Amino acid sequence: MSEEAPESLQAFRHFREKLNAAILASDNLTIKRFFALDARAYEDGALPARTKELLGLVASLVLRCDDCITYHLVRCREEGVSDPEIHDAMGVALVVGGSIVIPHLRRAVARMGELPPAAARGVS
Amino acid sequence: MSEEAPESLQAFRHFREKLNAAILASDNLTIKRFFALDARAYEDGALPARTKELLGLVASLVLRCDDCITYHLVRCREEGVSDPEIHDAMGVALVVGGSIVIPHLRRAVARMGELPPAAARGVS
Amino acid sequence: MSEEAPESLQAFRHFREKLNAAILASDNLTIKRFFALDARAYEDGALPARTKELLGLVASLVLRCDDCITYHLVRCREEGVSDPEIHDAMGVALVVGGSIVIPHLRRAVARMGELPPAAARGVS
Amino acid sequence: MSEEAPESLQAFRHFREKLNAAILASDNLTIKRFFALDARAYEDGALPARTKELLGLVASLVLRCDDCITYHLVRCREEGVSDPEIHDAMGVALVVGGSIVIPHLRRAVARMGELPPAAARGVS
Amino acid sequence: MSEEAPESLQAFRHFREKLNAAILASDNLTIKRFFALDARAYEDGALPARTKELLGLVASLVLRCDDCITYHLVRCREEGVSDPEIHDAMGVALVVGGSIVIPHLRRAVARMGELPPAAARGVS
Amino acid sequence: MSEEAPESLQAFRHFREKLNAAILASDNLTIKRFFALDARAYEDGALPARTKELLGLVASLVLRCDDCITYHLVRCREEGVSDPEIHDAMGVALVVGGSIVIPHLRRAVARMGELPPAAARGVS
Repeated sequence: MSEEAPESLQAFRHFREKLNAAILASDNLTIKRFFALDARAYEDGALPARTKELLGLVASLVLRCDDCITYHLVRCREEGVSDPEIHDAMGVALVVGGSIVIPHLRRAVARMGELPPAAARGVS
Repeated sequence: MSEEAPESLQAFRHFREKLNAAILASDNLTIKRFFALDARAYEDGALPARTKELLGLVASLVLRCDDCITYHLVRCREEGVSDPEIHDAMGVALVVGGSIVIPHLRRAVARMGELPPAAARGVS
Repeated sequence: MSEEAPESLQAFRHFREKLNAAILASDNLTIKRFFALDARAYEDGALPARTKELLGLVASLVLRCDDCITYHLVRCREEGVSDPEIHDAMGVALVVGGSIVIPHLRRAVARMGELPPAAARGVS
Repeated sequence: MSEEAPESLQAFRHFREKLNAAILASDNLTIKRFFALDARAYEDGALPARTKELLGLVASLVLRCDDCITYHLVRCREEGVSDPEIHDAMGVALVVGGSIVIPHLRRAVARMGELPPAAARGVS
Repeated sequence: MSEEAPESLQAFRHFREKLNAAILASDNLTIKRFFALDARAYEDGALPARTKELLGLVASLVLRCDDCITYHLVRCREEGVSDPEIHDAMGVALVVGGSIVIPHLRRAVARMGELPPAAARGVS
Repeated sequence: MSEEAPESLQAFRHFREKLNAAILASDNLTIKRFFALDARAYEDGALPARTKELLGLVASLVLRCDDCITYHLVRCREEGVSDPEIHDAMGVALVVGGSIVIPHLRRAVARMGELPPAAARGVS
């Protein structure tokens, strides 16, 4: 498999859960509070969770973090974001971030093939 | 005025327009096509222009580009994005990008004071 | 004055305080919690505040954020970090981050000329 | 094999082609135009393709994108860029981008071992 | 194994040594001098090697370079830096660099499980 | 003048020279050696100085460092690089780095207006 190809989603989730637990077990207060803050930043507020997940996806794409991209793709699908909406967000990220984003786009599109389709179509 | 304080919005716009014209006058085809593509990336599509401007704002915040932030703040206001919605987007950018984003947040909030309030409140 | 020359430390502080207040006045919970977390991350812990300020300085240098650099230089001096220690930290940041760090090093050294000397010499 | 070791060039090419096709199949106009623009940016112009590929290589090194580095190494070799010329470009990227570039340099040099030697020596 | 999981430390070391040798064999003077400079930047000076390795670790975390993080974790342990001290440094890096640092934190904590414990506890 | 408009070239040079001297006066060996290495990286080698300055320009554009861009624009002109060649290099940087590069492009083009024209036209 290519250097570009991401590992399976199941393996990603397993490693993520196991190591997040190990990080929190370090009992460092700054790290624990950051993790709590990270979770609540995407909850419904003035902007709905759905829009915030799209913001997280684009931020992850321009900062080029594959694991963050995977996480927000999963969450976007859970929030009912459609594929054309995800592609629109990818287009913005590509123009802002440049061709350096393309390898991450390839891995993101490969990842999308692994995810269950968007459950319900909400309104953007 | 502090090193952090941005120049006036009018001066920003004047310089931007003048130099964009100078860049396009170079008649370099790659650059001209990029500018055209940049303009169309934020038009209504599967996602509305309003959401795309929020995506552009968050991308600009995490990549820490003051001029890009100013541009998308202006456009967000034109699209009727409310202040609490902008603050929500800023919260996501801050958590994703870290404290290194804070100086840009300060300049962004100073900039918001210069802008006319959102004309109409649409739905996010 | 050159584009590289930072504004006066007093102007920096005035703008910083005023706009931090404006940001917190937005009453966005994510942003407020991030600001609280940012403050506590540099308090004495397993590592003393002094070492943490050096960590903050190097992180700010390699991420190339002038305002963050100014802030941590002020705090390093307050914690009694000596000039040769600051120069040593700058050397690490320069090697890790490359020549792209140099313009920020120039502004940092200009800033150091404005600061009161380290009050007391602690042990590193 | 180490985490640093890149996968085989053949696997890289296969994944790249397959996923580029998947991306373009999304039929998003912004993305499609960006891909077209990306291709033409390296064609002969005021600067020859050869020099542009060196520019792309250095940009990819300082932005630390392994897949982009691989792509431009392949293209440099096709354009007849010699190994000492590539090493010279790497030296510039290393000084500008700092030691953080070194792991990518290791993978780049490993990749060069897989590539056919430069066909013909042109003039820079 | 997950895309996040780093390869074994032994494989990392083997690849690193082999390719560093290949890079130096290119006999490019700029690159060779950079490598020499990189080695000496962490030697005892106004700041002890121990503190400099912590600086290198935080710089590597905020710049998100897994191989650099591994290297400095190994060196921190050799210098007797304790786990709570490393977690404190990670907390600073997380707040400065944002949630985008988290996947690297996961891999760093996984890596720490592979390393021999800190030989001796020095003073920070 | 706009926040985007760079200060005069003369002011830039004055500040740069004065502060470089201040940095070197710190007598930190790592910093001094880095400065020496930085100077020699752009000397004629397998690639001519002219091409290396173009590499430095593109690296500075994608890393978005205005002072570095100014420096390499001055040097490119001294090496006889023509305006269409500089625009070609800017096009590559724009495509690789994305729209986030545009504000730096504006300041770069403003800067070019201040520089004496390329003395002699060499061959690329």
